[in-house]
Amino acid sequence: MKSKAAVLAKLHHAPPILVLPNAWDAASARLFEDAGFPAIATTSAGIAWSLGHADKQKLGRAEMADAVARIARAVRIPVSADVEAGYGDVAATVNAMIDAGAVGMNLEDATHHAGKPMFPVDEQKDRIREARRAAEARKIPLVINARTDLFLLAADPGAEPVYEAIELLNAYREAGADCLFAPGIADRLRIEALAKALRGPLNVLAGAGTPSVAELELMGVARLSIGSGAMRASMALTQRIAIELRGAGTYAQLTEHTLPYSDADDLMNRRD
Amino acid sequence: MKSKAAVLAKLHHAPPILVLPNAWDAASARLFEDAGFPAIATTSAGIAWSLGHADKQKLGRAEMADAVARIARAVRIPVSADVEAGYGDVAATVNAMIDAGAVGMNLEDATHHAGKPMFPVDEQKDRIREARRAAEARKIPLVINARTDLFLLAADPGAEPVYEAIELLNAYREAGADCLFAPGIADRLRIEALAKALRGPLNVLAGAGTPSVAELELMGVARLSIGSGAMRASMALTQRIAIELRGAGTYAQLTEHTLPYSDADDLMNRRD
Repeated sequence: MKSKAAVLAKLHHAPPILVLPNAWDAASARLFEDAGFPAIATTSAGIAWSLGHADKQKLGRAEMADAVARIARAVRIPVSADVEAGYGDVAATVNAMIDAGAVGMNLEDATHHAGKPMFPVDEQKDRIREARRAAEARKIPLVINARTDLFLLAADPGAEPVYEAIELLNAYREAGADCLFAPGIADRLRIEALAKALRGPLNVLAGAGTPSVAELELMGVARLSIGSGAMRASMALTQRIAIELRGAGTYAQLTEHTLPYSDADDLMNRRD
Repeated sequence: MKSKAAVLAKLHHAPPILVLPNAWDAASARLFEDAGFPAIATTSAGIAWSLGHADKQKLGRAEMADAVARIARAVRIPVSADVEAGYGDVAATVNAMIDAGAVGMNLEDATHHAGKPMFPVDEQKDRIREARRAAEARKIPLVINARTDLFLLAADPGAEPVYEAIELLNAYREAGADCLFAPGIADRLRIEALAKALRGPLNVLAGAGTPSVAELELMGVARLSIGSGAMRASMALTQRIAIELRGAGTYAQLTEHTLPYSDADDLMNRRD
């Protein structure tokens, strides 16, 4: 665990940029490892949906820890767990994720409560310090990825200026975060401004319109993740399969680009 | 539960043919329900892979029951559970699946033991009777789908004659099976021969080369399922996303045909 955490931490101090795809189950985790990624993250939204919940802390710490454990058991590479806003007691969540085999953790500043959408900066700094202390008590150099939901919560994310995000993320860095995550921006100017002004590695989220991995690396971005993207693409494919099967009664979407049964089973069989 | 089982049973006595897509998690289950299917099944292979196991009874009864329960909770329509060869004690498995909310159950005649690949016909008949008794004790008219693995286990499934499958499946029908499942055949001649000679509804598995839903209905097929097909197509898409992200460093496969976050979350939010 200790050396896995160190490996994950080191991957942030590059180039090359760390591309960290987000798994939602053991199969997606194993597929990402198989494709050669040196580490993976989890997607809290993808995990929630796969287990029958909506996103945003509708499932609790224990159910999330079980899902992270299944993913961590499925791969040999380091796993960073997305624990949303930390499910209340942040130290308990750190312990649950370390028990599950995670060596990195996302912690966001959204509260998921109406009326008070974000934790005040001092409270969020305290929560990051609490996470760090809990990890240190376990002697694990947990890679804490502090996320600001500023852009996601903005009425017009495209118009939201970056200076507030810079202030928040630098404050989180001061509190002990290893990496600083700003989902919701895709334009070059703001990504470059953040990369320059942040006093720690910047994590960007891939989506339609995001500059390529090579371009992000040139801009100084340290880490790229995909959030629930691959899970949502898989859900869209399942929807197309369903619509074709129910409508035309044919199997093109089901069979055109598939993994043969034996390949899928061999992939999952490797470590049983 | 009782009326759900009756609804599922009635869907087998048609035309129209019952098209029963197989879910592996709550999200796929909800997507199939959303597409208008009147019932769904589960895929044991897809569930095993998503939880980090190889197929063929590598996960136990309890883990399978938890997965079936998550799927059954995610939908309002009847759910038929694939329980492979029944995990040893068939009555215990029936009880676990009814507790999980399933009103139908697949039971196969493969043993998954080397040396003795299939249960002798009398033993399999006893196992079907045992399943029926266990369901009756719970007062649930469980829809038992008896599957023969004869074609799947054959050295050359394409050359395997149908007469042995007809004998086996009619014996399973006599023992109380509601539906008779013969995965591994896709050619019209053998499907028609089975549909004519079986003394119960025939379940066929969709794959590349399988006649269309409309054609199967004309041939007298009562039920069509897709096994692990949609899960394997999703795994193949995840693999393409991974290869593109790790190679070209772009996001076409990730973003071209996707479900927007809000659509995915709304879909899973409906009953939280």
